[in-house]
Amino acid sequence: MTKQVAVAIVGATGAVGSTIMERLVSRNFPVKSIKFLASARSAGKPIEFNDETHTIEEAKPEAFEGVDVAFFSAGGSVSEALAEEAAKRGAVVIDNTSHFRMAPNVPLVVPEVNRGALKEHNGIIANPNCSTIQMVAALQPLRAAYGLTSVIVSTYQAVSGSGIAAINELKQQSSEWEKGKDVEASVLPVKGDKKHFPIARNVIPQIDVFEENGFTKEEMKMINETKKIMSMPDLHVAATCVRVPVVTGHSESVYIELEQEATKEQVFEALRTAPGLVLQDDITAQGYPMPIFAEGEDPVYVGRIRQDLSNKRGWHLWIVADNLLKGAALNSIQIAEAMLEDNLL
Amino acid sequence: MTKQVAVAIVGATGAVGSTIMERLVSRNFPVKSIKFLASARSAGKPIEFNDETHTIEEAKPEAFEGVDVAFFSAGGSVSEALAEEAAKRGAVVIDNTSHFRMAPNVPLVVPEVNRGALKEHNGIIANPNCSTIQMVAALQPLRAAYGLTSVIVSTYQAVSGSGIAAINELKQQSSEWEKGKDVEASVLPVKGDKKHFPIARNVIPQIDVFEENGFTKEEMKMINETKKIMSMPDLHVAATCVRVPVVTGHSESVYIELEQEATKEQVFEALRTAPGLVLQDDITAQGYPMPIFAEGEDPVYVGRIRQDLSNKRGWHLWIVADNLLKGAALNSIQIAEAMLEDNLL
Repeated sequence: MTKQVAVAIVGATGAVGSTIMERLVSRNFPVKSIKFLASARSAGKPIEFNDETHTIEEAKPEAFEGVDVAFFSAGGSVSEALAEEAAKRGAVVIDNTSHFRMAPNVPLVVPEVNRGALKEHNGIIANPNCSTIQMVAALQPLRAAYGLTSVIVSTYQAVSGSGIAAINELKQQSSEWEKGKDVEASVLPVKGDKKHFPIARNVIPQIDVFEENGFTKEEMKMINETKKIMSMPDLHVAATCVRVPVVTGHSESVYIELEQEATKEQVFEALRTAPGLVLQDDITAQGYPMPIFAEGEDPVYVGRIRQDLSNKRGWHLWIVADNLLKGAALNSIQIAEAMLEDNLL
Repeated sequence: MTKQVAVAIVGATGAVGSTIMERLVSRNFPVKSIKFLASARSAGKPIEFNDETHTIEEAKPEAFEGVDVAFFSAGGSVSEALAEEAAKRGAVVIDNTSHFRMAPNVPLVVPEVNRGALKEHNGIIANPNCSTIQMVAALQPLRAAYGLTSVIVSTYQAVSGSGIAAINELKQQSSEWEKGKDVEASVLPVKGDKKHFPIARNVIPQIDVFEENGFTKEEMKMINETKKIMSMPDLHVAATCVRVPVVTGHSESVYIELEQEATKEQVFEALRTAPGLVLQDDITAQGYPMPIFAEGEDPVYVGRIRQDLSNKRGWHLWIVADNLLKGAALNSIQIAEAMLEDNLL
């Protein structure tokens, strides 16, 4: 019999938290008990889960007593303040923020890629960045079969990665079509940054703030997290991250170099049989992944697969997934499911 | 005194043809006389140019008698039928279609890159594909200074590249926001292809039809035309071409490898001083090119320039230009201007 789990959700009202709640139910996660934790301001308010009304409690250290798994998605500062307190009280924290991702003693996990890292946890597991998760899920089967030496990715990222305010901004701007470049913008590219630009009818080559080396934080996340998840510190990874006027579903144009040569049939077969992936590549029927069709779906879709014309070890891939599901909530729950199966909970 | 030129425009009512007309006036091109040629169906209709009303004539071989320069943008079949007839009668044809681009005896020209090729013409000059023009314009100064060995590009292409029907489709779908993936689609990705997909809230990794090797025709144009324009048959070029919900302005995420190492200052300087380029790269002020601000502007904008973190000869660029101007009409007129200056007309 599966162990029944005492769950806590920190940040239940956000885009990721509410998707975690929905997927816990739809995946029949063995919830023994559940509590919803938020700031003192929200404590006492009602919240619906699986057709029952619960009351939000204040997120403070003692609230984690008796909790088996705590899903955190309330921002880096909340994770910083409370994740270690929760772990101290015996909860396993699955953290959706970037706060602990690069900490050496915190596993950064996509179960299809590095499930084995879970057993080295010290009470906190980090869920990777959305754009990283879908990419490594598609790279892993190719790396396992043929080795991997280089990854160059350009992203086409949906606005829902920036939260509900960004979705509303795109919607508002889209209905003000005729105003062109003069539409109001106050959220994208980065809520707290100096300037804001329209996203409707536009693409913005900035996600998160800039670092001194000219890359954005989002780009550095993709570079550093990919190396950590795949345990390949010397892998060549480069990223250009771009926001596009799509609501949900991140797309990625990825060029990779394999260590060994492979045939197209071999590459297709490796991707077709990999867990969590759907191969969608049929050029005669215009079959390829697109974000509008990935929205609300669990898998990572891969298509437009073709061998480079100059480099036999070079391959081009087009990878699409729902950034709120496999990119966030779903992967968090899959981490908990893997830990249950592996008797780590 | 500048020579006065007898001009003919074939396809004046299309998106490119009308932009050519507008720019001939705004750039004070020395028009001695102008005629507008179209199918028999349109012959006799009035057309406005520079505040005067002209009458459209039927495009037939004799119509090119006495013409110095004929701009063709009425589709490949019209160019196939009439370009050589025009050239035979002494006109220099500047062809905006893809029909002659890869013909060995037809120069394929971006004046900033390979102006010298103009003097080898045999009556026909081909204007390259829009996404190719802006890329080679930005690559040329770096190639000239430091050599170039590899180019890997992912594009973010505007719908106006597919004509006015595609613009209207995006506009219509944007106003039907709430319908999601069920909005009507009948133009994109390719008018004559089997399936059509929504472009609002979506990105489509197909521009033009597929070739047997898995690349689209648009991708093969970028690969083959880049090698021809730069006279580098062995250059490694790879492309993934993607349509995004932008009206006008193509964007490109480009990874290149130079032959020699260069500093960031040297790369900036090469781009800053190159003709036709505007360097827009100031990460402290969120300064980078975006299509919404390139629309209606002549230059090719380059930004997000950064040295690769693993490869000192690797550089990342973000290149944006108006696909109807530098990508089509403007480049055609610049070809004619260069030929005038070089006494080739």
